[in-house]
Amino acid sequence: MNENISHEITFRVRYHEVDQMGFLHHSRYFIYFEIGRTEFLRTSGFTYKEFEEKGLFLVIANVSCKYKYPIRYDDQIRLITTLTKMSIGKIEHSYEIWDESKSRLHAIGESTLACVDSNGHLHKIPEFLINLKYPDLSAPDRN
Amino acid sequence: MNENISHEITFRVRYHEVDQMGFLHHSRYFIYFEIGRTEFLRTSGFTYKEFEEKGLFLVIANVSCKYKYPIRYDDQIRLITTLTKMSIGKIEHSYEIWDESKSRLHAIGESTLACVDSNGHLHKIPEFLINLKYPDLSAPDRN
Amino acid sequence: MNENISHEITFRVRYHEVDQMGFLHHSRYFIYFEIGRTEFLRTSGFTYKEFEEKGLFLVIANVSCKYKYPIRYDDQIRLITTLTKMSIGKIEHSYEIWDESKSRLHAIGESTLACVDSNGHLHKIPEFLINLKYPDLSAPDRN
Amino acid sequence: MNENISHEITFRVRYHEVDQMGFLHHSRYFIYFEIGRTEFLRTSGFTYKEFEEKGLFLVIANVSCKYKYPIRYDDQIRLITTLTKMSIGKIEHSYEIWDESKSRLHAIGESTLACVDSNGHLHKIPEFLINLKYPDLSAPDRN
Repeated sequence: MNENISHEITFRVRYHEVDQMGFLHHSRYFIYFEIGRTEFLRTSGFTYKEFEEKGLFLVIANVSCKYKYPIRYDDQIRLITTLTKMSIGKIEHSYEIWDESKSRLHAIGESTLACVDSNGHLHKIPEFLINLKYPDLSAPDRN
Repeated sequence: MNENISHEITFRVRYHEVDQMGFLHHSRYFIYFEIGRTEFLRTSGFTYKEFEEKGLFLVIANVSCKYKYPIRYDDQIRLITTLTKMSIGKIEHSYEIWDESKSRLHAIGESTLACVDSNGHLHKIPEFLINLKYPDLSAPDRN
Repeated sequence: MNENISHEITFRVRYHEVDQMGFLHHSRYFIYFEIGRTEFLRTSGFTYKEFEEKGLFLVIANVSCKYKYPIRYDDQIRLITTLTKMSIGKIEHSYEIWDESKSRLHAIGESTLACVDSNGHLHKIPEFLINLKYPDLSAPDRN
Repeated sequence: MNENISHEITFRVRYHEVDQMGFLHHSRYFIYFEIGRTEFLRTSGFTYKEFEEKGLFLVIANVSCKYKYPIRYDDQIRLITTLTKMSIGKIEHSYEIWDESKSRLHAIGESTLACVDSNGHLHKIPEFLINLKYPDLSAPDRN
């Protein structure tokens, strides 16, 4: 199964993402988690864009984040996205955001996704999504 | 015709909209302009939401802004949106952002909208939109 | 004490906040929660802007949200922010997002805030903040 | 002088940047332009972060964009940033956004920057910034 495999991506914090404290705004971490999930999926050869083209959508059922150490403008950060559960009812991920050298853990998070159709009705997670094969890779650049 | 009538709205600058200089990020002004257009249209009794439900969309063809004096967190600002041209080919607006007491002009802008259908093809501006009646009003609160 | 008092605000979902599913993007809920906290505090007569002017900052230590029913463009939503804990170590809030008529619960959330100084070092929650008096009010408009 | 040299960067359109029409929201182009300027500057060996650490800020005096063809979720786009004027009074850039293969021009834009100090007062563009040397390069990946 695909559980407990991880994906790493590094990227740079952009100017508009930082608030007047000089810290990455806490709401932006969830956007980073979304980028992590998207790029993780892409490594399977399938994309979330193709998923929506089938008339299905993955929606967030719940999400959380603990903030341990602030992130600043122009920091290069390292996001590790781990697929922790993949079943016909839900998909769970966990996240860690580290500095580039991986010496400081800035934040950890979790999310649960459900699948809905274009009417917003719950749909089981498709078999093909559950059975995707992911390569064993680490730290590709954000692209 | 509906040209050269104006609409005013006041609203408050939110924390996440301000960058680490302590200034409203320049990209946010265009979001404020969009709120201005939306609320202006709503005063006619018709809404942009209803417009999209007809399968039509108003897209930005061009937009510009001149920034005169920075806007800060928690400022109450006054946005004046003026409909400067309404034709079958395009809709033009101009914008002024003032402080609450209207003693300082912070920014001015302009935009041109075109109408497209759900395939993204150009469509003429519908007659009913051109002929909407707007009340003469000023400075309702953002809502 | 100030625990378990609530504040309500209604506001409208903006175009740029909605994703291509037609749903309010999940990261935006945290921005709404921030608006809720800000407006709640303002009812005491003191503002978060004044707090930062004292060289102190309230930072998010952790936050979560459960999404129950999607929110769409132009919806008027009702946000209830409740102060659930206020101590020298942390401030906790809970949140509910309802539709305007309060017949459907769209989302619930929680957050914990800590206080830091301008160097990012932990600071106790100031006495004056703990002792603020809040009026008993409900559902002012967003402004 | 440094005028009329260009910088290219490719990057991918993120989910939260796209509106319910399925198009990159028009306000996001200005954020892309900002990324273009930032990465262009970085190729000189100097960064905008270091600039702010000197107590100086580059602020947008005016900006505009013409939108020619919509950009969609997950598109790889190619942004060309050209330094068109660098003087003691202002810095001007122009921008082109192409598809990845450079067969379709999606948008063009322009901006003017001014320099201010930490009090928001106009400051001349520093000599060292005017005299930076840029390598001749094209199309590094966004990082």
